[in-house]
Amino acid sequence: MILSALLTSVGINLGLCFLFFTLYSILRNQPSNLAVYAPRLVSRQKSRRRNDEFNLERLLPSPGWVRQACAPSEDELLSTLGFDAVVFMRIFIFCLKVFTFAGIIGIFILLPVNYLGNQLSYDFSDLPNKSLDSFSISNVDNGSNRLWIHFCAVYVFTAAVCYLLYYEYRHISSKRVSYFYSSKPKPHQFTILVRGIPVSSGGSVNETVESFFKEYHPSTYFSHSVVRRTNKIQKLISDAEKLYRRLAFLKLEKDSQKRFRRDGFLGLFGRKVDLLDHYEKKLEDLQDNVRMERSSLAGKDIPAAFVSFKSRLGAAVALNIKQGVNPTDWITEQAPDPQDVYWPFFSASFMKRWIFKLLVYVASFALIVLFLVPVVIVQGLTHLDQLETWFPFLRGILSLTFISQVITGYLPSLILQLFLSFVPPVMILFSSIEGYISLSQVAKSACNKMWWFTVWNIFFVNVLSGTALYQVNLFLQPKKIPQVLAEGVPAQASFFIAYVVTSGWTSLSSELFRLTALIYSFISRLFSHNSGNEFEVPSIAWHSEIPRIVFFELLGITYFFLDPLILPFLLVFYCLGYIIYRNQLLNVYAPKFETGGKFWPIVHNSTIFSLILMHIIAIGIFGLKKLPLASSLTIPLPVLTLLFNEYCRKRFLPMFTAFPMECLVKKDREDQNDPTMSEFYNKLENAYRDPALMPVQYSSSTDGRNSPLLHSV
Amino acid sequence: MILSALLTSVGINLGLCFLFFTLYSILRNQPSNLAVYAPRLVSRQKSRRRNDEFNLERLLPSPGWVRQACAPSEDELLSTLGFDAVVFMRIFIFCLKVFTFAGIIGIFILLPVNYLGNQLSYDFSDLPNKSLDSFSISNVDNGSNRLWIHFCAVYVFTAAVCYLLYYEYRHISSKRVSYFYSSKPKPHQFTILVRGIPVSSGGSVNETVESFFKEYHPSTYFSHSVVRRTNKIQKLISDAEKLYRRLAFLKLEKDSQKRFRRDGFLGLFGRKVDLLDHYEKKLEDLQDNVRMERSSLAGKDIPAAFVSFKSRLGAAVALNIKQGVNPTDWITEQAPDPQDVYWPFFSASFMKRWIFKLLVYVASFALIVLFLVPVVIVQGLTHLDQLETWFPFLRGILSLTFISQVITGYLPSLILQLFLSFVPPVMILFSSIEGYISLSQVAKSACNKMWWFTVWNIFFVNVLSGTALYQVNLFLQPKKIPQVLAEGVPAQASFFIAYVVTSGWTSLSSELFRLTALIYSFISRLFSHNSGNEFEVPSIAWHSEIPRIVFFELLGITYFFLDPLILPFLLVFYCLGYIIYRNQLLNVYAPKFETGGKFWPIVHNSTIFSLILMHIIAIGIFGLKKLPLASSLTIPLPVLTLLFNEYCRKRFLPMFTAFPMECLVKKDREDQNDPTMSEFYNKLENAYRDPALMPVQYSSSTDGRNSPLLHSV
Repeated sequence: MILSALLTSVGINLGLCFLFFTLYSILRNQPSNLAVYAPRLVSRQKSRRRNDEFNLERLLPSPGWVRQACAPSEDELLSTLGFDAVVFMRIFIFCLKVFTFAGIIGIFILLPVNYLGNQLSYDFSDLPNKSLDSFSISNVDNGSNRLWIHFCAVYVFTAAVCYLLYYEYRHISSKRVSYFYSSKPKPHQFTILVRGIPVSSGGSVNETVESFFKEYHPSTYFSHSVVRRTNKIQKLISDAEKLYRRLAFLKLEKDSQKRFRRDGFLGLFGRKVDLLDHYEKKLEDLQDNVRMERSSLAGKDIPAAFVSFKSRLGAAVALNIKQGVNPTDWITEQAPDPQDVYWPFFSASFMKRWIFKLLVYVASFALIVLFLVPVVIVQGLTHLDQLETWFPFLRGILSLTFISQVITGYLPSLILQLFLSFVPPVMILFSSIEGYISLSQVAKSACNKMWWFTVWNIFFVNVLSGTALYQVNLFLQPKKIPQVLAEGVPAQASFFIAYVVTSGWTSLSSELFRLTALIYSFISRLFSHNSGNEFEVPSIAWHSEIPRIVFFELLGITYFFLDPLILPFLLVFYCLGYIIYRNQLLNVYAPKFETGGKFWPIVHNSTIFSLILMHIIAIGIFGLKKLPLASSLTIPLPVLTLLFNEYCRKRFLPMFTAFPMECLVKKDREDQNDPTMSEFYNKLENAYRDPALMPVQYSSSTDGRNSPLLHSV
Repeated sequence: MILSALLTSVGINLGLCFLFFTLYSILRNQPSNLAVYAPRLVSRQKSRRRNDEFNLERLLPSPGWVRQACAPSEDELLSTLGFDAVVFMRIFIFCLKVFTFAGIIGIFILLPVNYLGNQLSYDFSDLPNKSLDSFSISNVDNGSNRLWIHFCAVYVFTAAVCYLLYYEYRHISSKRVSYFYSSKPKPHQFTILVRGIPVSSGGSVNETVESFFKEYHPSTYFSHSVVRRTNKIQKLISDAEKLYRRLAFLKLEKDSQKRFRRDGFLGLFGRKVDLLDHYEKKLEDLQDNVRMERSSLAGKDIPAAFVSFKSRLGAAVALNIKQGVNPTDWITEQAPDPQDVYWPFFSASFMKRWIFKLLVYVASFALIVLFLVPVVIVQGLTHLDQLETWFPFLRGILSLTFISQVITGYLPSLILQLFLSFVPPVMILFSSIEGYISLSQVAKSACNKMWWFTVWNIFFVNVLSGTALYQVNLFLQPKKIPQVLAEGVPAQASFFIAYVVTSGWTSLSSELFRLTALIYSFISRLFSHNSGNEFEVPSIAWHSEIPRIVFFELLGITYFFLDPLILPFLLVFYCLGYIIYRNQLLNVYAPKFETGGKFWPIVHNSTIFSLILMHIIAIGIFGLKKLPLASSLTIPLPVLTLLFNEYCRKRFLPMFTAFPMECLVKKDREDQNDPTMSEFYNKLENAYRDPALMPVQYSSSTDGRNSPLLHSV
């Protein structure tokens, strides 16, 4: 790509960013949009006085919200948004630190060195048409001693990243412990999920669980609730819910018609009454069905149960020590938060779940590899000459400078983005089939899949496309990997810069604008009477945001010494991300679940992967540039990095899987003096009942049959 | 190798075997050799009447001992020899089952098919000079449909081995549980080793451990003993011990001289008295040193301690739940049996031990790869033509048929055997540096190293020697591995048959003969007065025997369809092994330590490795034999085998690392009704004191200064 094409792309995207920012700054000042731009605020202080008066200030864009977003300290974030939000923000801070360091070295040392090379002979007078390659390592002369500067930069940068990773891991893990100490007792801290309960013939799951835990955990066992197969009831309840809503709407209309049009339009009115009767009959039928299904559930237990204990230590003991003689029976697992439980989880046998897991691995692998086909086609669009050969009739249009610049600089990444939007739901589906018991685990697993998907389909496919179908063979000849990567990676710098600008800057700022939410709110306000409070607080699943953030990190780390031009663009992205997420967090989104920062290890691992990838490319590059000594001297670097990673795994990772004895006992002792504990135990007893079975107790209440089902929603 | 050469080798070795068997049958009947051939019996029933009368029967070889050895049932073995002995015997039974099955298919189906092929054109009339290759798969015509028989055999055999593995794993793990149920309380079941104790400045390890466990395990903590650095004292004590022995010998001589020669030889007598005084002075000095070292130890605690609990469950809780906030502090580990503790273990910090582990990995890897050099030279000896080129003066001798047959059939494996004998001690040294805390763990780790060593240096180096230094490159091109193995493996069948015969048959039977022990006993009887009871019961470390047994399994499995001729030789080896080990176990050896059958997983894993290797070779062979369809259809087999292995890991392996809640609680409850428990707790308190520190309490006793040091031995 030439410089002018890149500048066009950057210009378009910068313009869009400013547009979104300005629109946001104006629109957020309109009180009617408050539910869209600050639903958290709305839900927190519903009594807040609305300033509906018109004034000019409301139409002027003001950047005050940026200051507002950055104001709260880490501890304030922790108390209002939970630990995950803090970790999420720390990721941006970490990336900003890394790329500020990289940027200083890259722009002030490496870029001038690259530019002063003579390997690529271009016409210096024609700067706008100059290829971006002249800023990259490709322009350094082969065998030049200046490459030792790059060599040193790789070592220094790796050391700096490792130091920052260590510092961040330590910081987050110590914060995690203090968050645990300061937290109120939560049901999931006292509960485990037991699967593979070996029920003897004639016995029930209920009895088996009770007798087992009363026998082997007599002093700590508290209560349990057996899991049941409620898919059918869930379906019926959701149907009933829809019907109830429609019924409520019709009743409302009937009332208003009664009030305003006491006479006339009798025909229409009569038809509505008929419809109401019909719906009420249908709803009754549905409710009868639900009741029937519930009563027939009695014998349909799944051999799985949530078992609660009197103390956190009791739960930890049951969790960490194998329970039964047969290791595939009595499999224990930390219970998720009650609202985090993924109820339709597969409670199948050990073998079945294992086979499902394998099948999902194969399916994900296939998806990741087969996705290649559309990507390769999209990739073809960046090569104008290929496009002209395939579609000769386009030659006229393509000769226009602007069109060709749009096609090469903007269109490919946009189409890719469209394709990519179909992948996350599929990955979530895969992860939910795998047998995870909580939404957060499903999200985490999908996040991992998405990360590998992104790395393969965006990074490797683009980098290797020059060598076409050679890719599969490559992984059977590991020796050639550095060379092939070194040949492919530097050439794609401009593509990735464009990608950062489009997928990073623009899509991030458009998220700020919240267009779809705005349109939805506008439409619903047109058709509905009391839409003011209808807008719910949208939830955010951190994990779905991680792959992109981390992928940009990979780009930054691998291109750091190849083409430092990408670094300022990344810095802008992380700055934007920091501001925008601090703002959609404080005002808009509510966290969907709290994992206690369990996605930090994902970020850590992918950073290590990026470093290793950079080292492999460096080995290849120094080889290509005829400096074999530097190539050999780089080999210890990935080994040292892997050792560092191994050390971090041992030093910090255990803190992210479970809390140690010291913490558990301390918290348990605190509880002993807490007068609210008896209330908590009452809550704990019913915390893990399936929502589909919850409202049975209301069904005999006298105030009509619809209310219990509404409660269940 | 030609048939006659192989027959020569087999003949020599069979002769040696018979010689050893006969010698053993005669020598074991001599009462004076009882201490050599049945020290276990001697130690068990010392009062047994000795039948010193001479009769002719004593000189006739009788095979009665074979019947005697096979008589005891598995439960009898379990009660007299422990669980490891049972598992060790089960390994032989497993191998016998596998190779009986393989033998039936191999000899009655595959061998005739191979022999009827025409790929290798030999003169049929000259059977003795016929190459062994005509019995191997190499003789089957390329592209012949008969190869499908081999294909089916590979599938059927894999299924059979997997079934047998599953059956055996299940059998052994259920036996392990019942052995645990029937066992008496043992100190190691109640104890854990804690390392990385974070001592605050000013505090002592002793106080830190006590306060921590009293704080966090108030109801289960029993006692602890801090580990100290006693290498120096151990050295001093062993010096003192040697001196004491010499002194005792001199005193004995003095007494007898006093008795028999009350007068005369005064000069000599006087000199002896001088020497006695000198030694006694030296011993006193040594003892003072020991006392000084011991008193100066007070402050030299290592931040590690054995912590005992009141119940097995208490120990399991402390073991399985992370203790401290920092995961590298308070690292817990199952304590070994007190006599299994490897006292000079490295109690260094977490980081140091981790670095040592890494260094040992590198060193072992280097040893395994560099050992190649002597092996390649030895390998050269099997090629007569090369030998003639290097040493032209040998040409005359080499032309003798007998000499050439000895050189090609016998000598190479003998020299190899010599080289190999230096390796196990090195591997044990490596494993002990790694930081294991027990002799059994050291032995297990050394066993694993030896297994990889054997596989690489005996199997792969022999198979790949044709392709010389190409080997390292091979592992960077995984795609070529099947082809290269398929080219190299079948040609080495005869070498491995010779190897089985020499290293298997002969060395196994020579162990029966116990030549070195016999010579030692003979010499010591010549020079000593009361040598009758001096001969100690030798100990056996199972792990050192495993690599050979398992390596032969690898040979059998990989050659099963390539050259079934090896199978009968292996069957004979396993039969011999079964008889001989049952015998040297019942009569000679005492187990060095009891691991509860923890070496079965090693056997399982290496069997799976052998199967996968066989599949890879099969893929290569079918490719070479121009039957690509069979080659592709074999690919699912290694995948299925790995899945089977993964299933076994989940289903059985956890039983081999720790006992579940169910077992622990049951055993603990049994103990509550056991009146001998108070006695056991008394023993437990001092069970894990360093032997170097044990006899301090005796030092003030009145009966002289020598006795405490003797006690310590």
